[in-house]
Amino acid sequence: MALGKDYADQDCGIARTLEIIGERWTALIVRDCLYGVTRFSDLQVHLDISKAVLADRLESLVANGVLEKLTGEGHPEYVLTRAGRDLWPLINAMAQWGNRHGTGGTRTPTRAFRHADCGSLIDINGFCTACKIIPEVTEIISTPERASRRTDPVTQRLREPRRLLDPLR
Amino acid sequence: MALGKDYADQDCGIARTLEIIGERWTALIVRDCLYGVTRFSDLQVHLDISKAVLADRLESLVANGVLEKLTGEGHPEYVLTRAGRDLWPLINAMAQWGNRHGTGGTRTPTRAFRHADCGSLIDINGFCTACKIIPEVTEIISTPERASRRTDPVTQRLREPRRLLDPLR
Repeated sequence: MALGKDYADQDCGIARTLEIIGERWTALIVRDCLYGVTRFSDLQVHLDISKAVLADRLESLVANGVLEKLTGEGHPEYVLTRAGRDLWPLINAMAQWGNRHGTGGTRTPTRAFRHADCGSLIDINGFCTACKIIPEVTEIISTPERASRRTDPVTQRLREPRRLLDPLR
Repeated sequence: MALGKDYADQDCGIARTLEIIGERWTALIVRDCLYGVTRFSDLQVHLDISKAVLADRLESLVANGVLEKLTGEGHPEYVLTRAGRDLWPLINAMAQWGNRHGTGGTRTPTRAFRHADCGSLIDINGFCTACKIIPEVTEIISTPERASRRTDPVTQRLREPRRLLDPLR
């Protein structure tokens, strides 16, 4: 692309966030990690992108302290660091805004975010209007709201209600 | 760039948001509009990007219902629509995450977001911990916290405490 990925003279938190998650597909990788996806092959099948692009984005997220790559027996796993988990309010705001105002108009999302304690939907600020609190990311359940047109195995497993960050293995 | 700007098969609010504000510079244009910048020339001097890129991004934001272009006497003005103002939680989360975790480590931001009623900083969820509420975007004051290295006239005017969306003319 003609423009670099840094915003050197902007001196602004938003620009610094975009330097780390502003590249194409990167925010969707973080979304999948919040859903508990940990493996390269699962990320690839769910995002349906090339291995080269995925490998590049994962390397960058690890280098920037958003993901940790765990290597032991079996497949390496990518898990969100504390900084990565702190992206939850941003990812939630993106999801909620897109469902309300995104291309194609208002529609029921395939999955919604609910407070585990009460089952209520959380809002664009991550606020549970029933309990009047902002639950931690680990207190959020992703629930299926309508059928997805995708049929890959990861999408199928995400059709169950699942707590965020609960590893999908 | 090799990849298009849509995420056709993702069927997800996050992807639909990225289709509208995921292009390079677009989120920073929305940020400036929240700060009250309304004119093409002011956006250009503050973002320091080419007129062609700025014109392209503005046209896209108008087409996608985020900005309205007001033409009357004098310069046209770009103002956020209701959908555009609803991007505030996302822009706030981006700013706060970047200041805490962005490239270069934790540092005092040049500007902070405070609740107009009490002067307290709001958090990454847009929550005022003093008042225990989530203020509306028009109840947020942008305050200077440290000197910016930028010297353009728009940056200089934004050094004053200013209410978000208060037009900068």
